[in-house]
Amino acid sequence: MRVALVGGGVIGGGWAGRLVENGLDVVVFDPHPDAERRVREVLENAERAWKQLTYAPRRRGTVTFVGDLDEAVRHADLVQESVPENVELKRRLFAEIEKHAPADALFASSTSGLLPSVLQAELRNPERFLVAHPFNPVYLLPLVEIVGGESTSEQSISRASELYESIGMRPLRVRTEIDGFVADRLLEALWREALWLVEDDVATVEEIDDAVRFGPGLRWAQMGTFLTYRIAGGEEGMHHFLEQFGPALKWPWTKLMDVPELDAELIDRIARQSDEQARGLSVRELERIRDDNLVAILQALRARTYAAGEVLHEHETRLFAAGADGRGEPDAREPLRLHETTVDPSSLDYNGHMTESRYGVEFGYATDAFLRHVGLDAQYLESGHSAYTVEGHVRFLREVAALEPIAVDTQVLAVDGKRLHLFHSLRHGGSGELLATGEYMLLHVDTAEGRTCPWEEPVASRLSEAATAHARLPLPEGAGRAVSMPGSG
Amino acid sequence: MRVALVGGGVIGGGWAGRLVENGLDVVVFDPHPDAERRVREVLENAERAWKQLTYAPRRRGTVTFVGDLDEAVRHADLVQESVPENVELKRRLFAEIEKHAPADALFASSTSGLLPSVLQAELRNPERFLVAHPFNPVYLLPLVEIVGGESTSEQSISRASELYESIGMRPLRVRTEIDGFVADRLLEALWREALWLVEDDVATVEEIDDAVRFGPGLRWAQMGTFLTYRIAGGEEGMHHFLEQFGPALKWPWTKLMDVPELDAELIDRIARQSDEQARGLSVRELERIRDDNLVAILQALRARTYAAGEVLHEHETRLFAAGADGRGEPDAREPLRLHETTVDPSSLDYNGHMTESRYGVEFGYATDAFLRHVGLDAQYLESGHSAYTVEGHVRFLREVAALEPIAVDTQVLAVDGKRLHLFHSLRHGGSGELLATGEYMLLHVDTAEGRTCPWEEPVASRLSEAATAHARLPLPEGAGRAVSMPGSG
Repeated sequence: MRVALVGGGVIGGGWAGRLVENGLDVVVFDPHPDAERRVREVLENAERAWKQLTYAPRRRGTVTFVGDLDEAVRHADLVQESVPENVELKRRLFAEIEKHAPADALFASSTSGLLPSVLQAELRNPERFLVAHPFNPVYLLPLVEIVGGESTSEQSISRASELYESIGMRPLRVRTEIDGFVADRLLEALWREALWLVEDDVATVEEIDDAVRFGPGLRWAQMGTFLTYRIAGGEEGMHHFLEQFGPALKWPWTKLMDVPELDAELIDRIARQSDEQARGLSVRELERIRDDNLVAILQALRARTYAAGEVLHEHETRLFAAGADGRGEPDAREPLRLHETTVDPSSLDYNGHMTESRYGVEFGYATDAFLRHVGLDAQYLESGHSAYTVEGHVRFLREVAALEPIAVDTQVLAVDGKRLHLFHSLRHGGSGELLATGEYMLLHVDTAEGRTCPWEEPVASRLSEAATAHARLPLPEGAGRAVSMPGSG
Repeated sequence: MRVALVGGGVIGGGWAGRLVENGLDVVVFDPHPDAERRVREVLENAERAWKQLTYAPRRRGTVTFVGDLDEAVRHADLVQESVPENVELKRRLFAEIEKHAPADALFASSTSGLLPSVLQAELRNPERFLVAHPFNPVYLLPLVEIVGGESTSEQSISRASELYESIGMRPLRVRTEIDGFVADRLLEALWREALWLVEDDVATVEEIDDAVRFGPGLRWAQMGTFLTYRIAGGEEGMHHFLEQFGPALKWPWTKLMDVPELDAELIDRIARQSDEQARGLSVRELERIRDDNLVAILQALRARTYAAGEVLHEHETRLFAAGADGRGEPDAREPLRLHETTVDPSSLDYNGHMTESRYGVEFGYATDAFLRHVGLDAQYLESGHSAYTVEGHVRFLREVAALEPIAVDTQVLAVDGKRLHLFHSLRHGGSGELLATGEYMLLHVDTAEGRTCPWEEPVASRLSEAATAHARLPLPEGAGRAVSMPGSG
């Protein structure tokens, strides 16, 4: 599966990030002299964000920059265009793309609101063209609006939807071709009203942003407008609630019957207020703050399996099932490095170090990774068997700061018919320094009966192989210890 | 500090929840026969949400329902009115309130957009009147718009702002008196556009909600519109970015130059689509889903100390510093129950039980609560001393499901000059059944020097008292154990 990205701005770069983090190889074409540097910066942000976002095994794709459109699209399965919003430019580009791309390649435009029927009108094979409109940052926000034109085939729509789903996105089929589609019409209405508030000096850009993020924005991140109002309506129901809105629609609560003049003066005012709001932070710094916030919100919603969190959860489930992280099999005779990550910035103590209880969480991930390694996968769990931790001992040796790389090396100390004795060493991913150790005893259980039972195949054999391979390793320092205070009590 | 709530609908009930969860006593007046039941339902939701939201010690306030306006406001420091949006009704009520309330009571209206100058015009002391407009659910969303009228005094504005801050809110001073203030103008613009999309059958209410919550809604929960666009503008800056918007403002990307007719047919259509979207869930079920999502998002942002999470973080810091949970001193001779909560629904395994690593997190909270109990508070930490866990041993005995009540009983096993040996028993909060045990060794450290040092006062004395009081208790079962597999190796 190969993707050609035509246009390497914020959106094209964002596509590159999402595709590469999900194992697809991309070729980028953008004649702008800074394009490669800019795309590489977005790729760096995307890599950083996905490392925090998920522990699921992923292969990373490759990025190639080419100087010719021809070369970019020649072997593409999908051509994704993300150039400025100019009908003529887009039509000219797609005519050129069609000359060089494979006959069955899918063509998608990232336009925020231009009509697919207009963009596809001059193509020889317009049925393969559609709009796939993503949202910045493309590598984190799951929404992609899928809009077909008059000549787009249903087959193209479904091929595209499957593809975007496979990279963790949430395709929204826009059934009616309309300027601005759905999301950008809502964004545009809010944006124009916000411009009026600045123009009339009712509020500064920072006050307007605060009015959103401390209130309704928190609702919009999980339910939209209608479900929120259904709840606000309470027991009396949606009908009753809506009837109250009738008169309110005549109230002067918006100035959108008119459009503000975005002249030099208003632009100056917004730019000046925006500088104040940014408190000297560069766009790059703001990007990372935004990304960390989005990752934290996505993870919170993942724990709730709701909205964008459900999309992430389903994507991770597929990734875990596929199990391909492209690293190959580790050396079975050495402690197994099956869990690598960076210190989650949402789990820090007041000194900015990884909080103590988080060490146990990382050991939990390492145990899970080891269990998957020996075949205790989703299918095995569904057969009604699982391994429960019954006991654990952790030694905290060194502190480690946010976003530092960490890795866990896992040694099998013993295995018998129903039990597994593991020893994890948590190390700094760069220096290899030992940060903590975790020793765990697990029991194999029949989950329906709620009692222990012998390991089943293939886990039984793989566990015994792992134990044999590790039998020659020395007992790690700290194994078998109890918590005690010599000489006191 | 006493608050009179006039009006017990969704907003009045939400105010009751926020105030009570933050230790204030409220008196509610609403002549509607169902008002008390409805407010009690909101109070239940608020209690449930705040239990999950924070572990900080809080006193809970009381709620009294009264049948007379006179009785409700007679001893009030603040009268908060939340009745329907009807100027005459509100003016009549406040005239009546003024007859009975103390001379220095503050008067606030929860109106979403009526002008304070109009509402206060006939008061004898209009300087004490202002608008404090909250957002549903009031007990979770921090935003409150503070709007003064022509006669409102600056002193009233600052008294009100301090009060709302003290209950964990984020007052936004709206400097210009304008219909709809700031937030509701933005909401109204988006809402009217959304109505057009349904009216024109471009999208269903569910599709419109999806267009928000899978995309821009995630951005709005942490940065607003302007900061988001500043970032999207990239290196070229806000000026350059805005200049591109000029022509777009003339594009037909919104229909807001006109207002849709919210007639019976459109109301029917929305109500029908909303029923489909709700998948048979009751409003009460939806409320709890929404609340759990909001709690999870607020906690994620708290970990980032950003936006609404910063508000929560600062509020918790104050609560921890105050340390008053209204429970009084526990019996020093028994294991100390200093940490009680419900199983966090964001930390579950695939079976819906509290995930293994979360047991360690709960023990961490119990250790923190014990350290605060013996005087290791924010001030002690600032003096450059802290206690680090060096070793821990956990036994997992029983599973426990989401939202079940849990509690930790803490026994001091030993204390010496620099060390502390604790044993935690995690129990079901209802049945008392033992779910897990956690045994921990802590070292006292000089954080600047990075090495151990003797406990300082008052912690040293309080620790030794606690150890003496517990010396007569038997050693708990499971103490002093190491992880081992008898008979295997």
